[in-house]
Amino acid sequence: MVFDPSRFITLTTDFGHRGPFIGVMKGVILSSCADAKIIDLTHECLVHWPAEAGFWIARSYAFFPKGTIHLAVVDPGVGTERGLIIILAKGHAFLGPNNGLLSEVAEFSGAIVRSVSSDVIERYRIENESTTFHGRDILAPLVAALASGEICFDDFGPECDDFIAGIVEKPEWFAGVLTGQIVTTDNFGNLITNISREDLASLKAPVVSAGGEHFSMKKTYGDVVPGQNLVLINSLDMLEIACSERSATEVLGIGRGSPVKVMDGGKFS
Amino acid sequence: MVFDPSRFITLTTDFGHRGPFIGVMKGVILSSCADAKIIDLTHECLVHWPAEAGFWIARSYAFFPKGTIHLAVVDPGVGTERGLIIILAKGHAFLGPNNGLLSEVAEFSGAIVRSVSSDVIERYRIENESTTFHGRDILAPLVAALASGEICFDDFGPECDDFIAGIVEKPEWFAGVLTGQIVTTDNFGNLITNISREDLASLKAPVVSAGGEHFSMKKTYGDVVPGQNLVLINSLDMLEIACSERSATEVLGIGRGSPVKVMDGGKFS
Amino acid sequence: MVFDPSRFITLTTDFGHRGPFIGVMKGVILSSCADAKIIDLTHECLVHWPAEAGFWIARSYAFFPKGTIHLAVVDPGVGTERGLIIILAKGHAFLGPNNGLLSEVAEFSGAIVRSVSSDVIERYRIENESTTFHGRDILAPLVAALASGEICFDDFGPECDDFIAGIVEKPEWFAGVLTGQIVTTDNFGNLITNISREDLASLKAPVVSAGGEHFSMKKTYGDVVPGQNLVLINSLDMLEIACSERSATEVLGIGRGSPVKVMDGGKFS
Repeated sequence: MVFDPSRFITLTTDFGHRGPFIGVMKGVILSSCADAKIIDLTHECLVHWPAEAGFWIARSYAFFPKGTIHLAVVDPGVGTERGLIIILAKGHAFLGPNNGLLSEVAEFSGAIVRSVSSDVIERYRIENESTTFHGRDILAPLVAALASGEICFDDFGPECDDFIAGIVEKPEWFAGVLTGQIVTTDNFGNLITNISREDLASLKAPVVSAGGEHFSMKKTYGDVVPGQNLVLINSLDMLEIACSERSATEVLGIGRGSPVKVMDGGKFS
Repeated sequence: MVFDPSRFITLTTDFGHRGPFIGVMKGVILSSCADAKIIDLTHECLVHWPAEAGFWIARSYAFFPKGTIHLAVVDPGVGTERGLIIILAKGHAFLGPNNGLLSEVAEFSGAIVRSVSSDVIERYRIENESTTFHGRDILAPLVAALASGEICFDDFGPECDDFIAGIVEKPEWFAGVLTGQIVTTDNFGNLITNISREDLASLKAPVVSAGGEHFSMKKTYGDVVPGQNLVLINSLDMLEIACSERSATEVLGIGRGSPVKVMDGGKFS
Repeated sequence: MVFDPSRFITLTTDFGHRGPFIGVMKGVILSSCADAKIIDLTHECLVHWPAEAGFWIARSYAFFPKGTIHLAVVDPGVGTERGLIIILAKGHAFLGPNNGLLSEVAEFSGAIVRSVSSDVIERYRIENESTTFHGRDILAPLVAALASGEICFDDFGPECDDFIAGIVEKPEWFAGVLTGQIVTTDNFGNLITNISREDLASLKAPVVSAGGEHFSMKKTYGDVVPGQNLVLINSLDMLEIACSERSATEVLGIGRGSPVKVMDGGKFS
């Protein structure tokens, strides 16, 4: 399958902004692909938890030009035997460790998942690579090689047969109640769940319960007065619990992993 | 009036760095204006308070090339009836919600303020736009269209007749005392006021009082020993209260909104 | 000596991400060198402490293309008599205040250190420069002039004869024990020391002691179970104390400046 690189590259990591770690990855990419255009997706993913990075990428990639390469490094197993994978889906390429990070992307219709072969790693890695920073030493050179057309998607390795599944559970229906959870939060303290617009499509008047409170569905934050709680379908097409002009995280005292229940039409008691 | 786009675009938001929100805005811009050059001004404006974003932009735009488009998104009213405005001033364009954010820019001499018409929004917005993220779905496509020359400034809509004024009060003189306030702080804990160099021009030896302490004017931080407080006119041409090599915010225990008084020549008692 | 600019520029500061300070530096650079490619190294260096910025730069520059200009601004003496220096080493240029920040780079073999002359500053500084933000008003224009070829390295000023030494002490051997210290930490809470791979080259089985605990050397984080402490040589070629999938900073309760001791072969008692 043909991937046509656009020179756009996104980066998603759990490195934060302390230290030069993101900067040197960019330096390595630009050293062999000087006209790459690198965009930070986010570097404040929860550390050591590949799921959040994958959640963001699956809901962001489509806003970039086709031919973009999405590099993700949340990699607690760096330097161990964990492999690397590359995925081609919807005209975009996705590269990262085989640790569940890219599981949702791998399930996109038409997605092809390849294991990055040790030959390919050997050919492109920087000399004397470290055991602790493969983002810089292995993944950045691979991205540069793909972006500049030095290697094409099909040559990265064989189709992957040991793909690691993701660790964010899907929401589940039981006795008329859909139970999901908070996956992450944003800078405003909004609580973002693993329940999608599609999951709620069959409900006429969804009522949401979390943290001991009930919420009814609104269109946007400004539909209620400041300080009032609400739920809405957010810009990622996911159910989100918010508090208008406040932090729902603080107001409700819940966060990542907290359960969220949905049922139809005010039937909670 | 003619705006000649340079392809430079600055972004100012209250999104912080958690999540892919800034990244996807860049993706949308680059998807239709691939050679845009996007510079982050800051994404750590106080959330839900448009005034700080506007304060920074009014004191930063002039350091960018003429033809730069400055996009600002601090938008607690997203998805409600609040409109969007575009301003042309000093050869730069400024785009954001009509919520007071751009009030200071709108007062620049020669500034022209237009309401973005619903026709224009309709023509450029992405399909199935969200109700909660117009930065990505409406403003980013508009910026790209302006930057690439697809639309020109005058075609954005009629001159604005319902412009929302800003909410940072100007400092006021009463009985020989100028009273202003702390608008924001920086990474060093310096306290930045709404009192400008011009406001102090008539004073021979300004003495500043805040948080129960008096300060005299210095040229720079190193003019006093580490740990000593001072005031100076900072690089934004605003009065700033600082503590040499320390955080004045912590040392003085004051912050955003705290009153600051200035009088001439040591006349406080 | 000839420096051949590549148009790549890295920025390292202690400005954090609050306010438009980094953005306006980029604006100034791009205003006179529109095709500069600016990469953030980090802006979260410890404030007022030039040593950390210099530590990162000395271990990062080599991952960028030759011809890159590395601009560093951690500058508590801004606006006082402290001078500026420019260094040419290994095909890269380094510009910053003469306050110890660039001391390690200045010791690279073949490095040439020049004082930036007041004539050069006068020629390139922006009009009415501030006393508190030379990064924007003096250093950014100098970088742009060097990047665009308007001035060449040798014309910046005379070789520097009052170079300020760095303030990170080197580790020292005494009675068979090497004593160093924690220089900084990363986003994961890993503790990064001033002890290099080279410093340990003579040891067969280094045992490290810090915070009342002993650690033995591993290759990477995943070599021990989550929650277990370890030491390794990190991607900067420095000794690092870590706790697998945890924050060693929190687990051990130590940080910047804490002593670290190394000896050979389990001889601590």
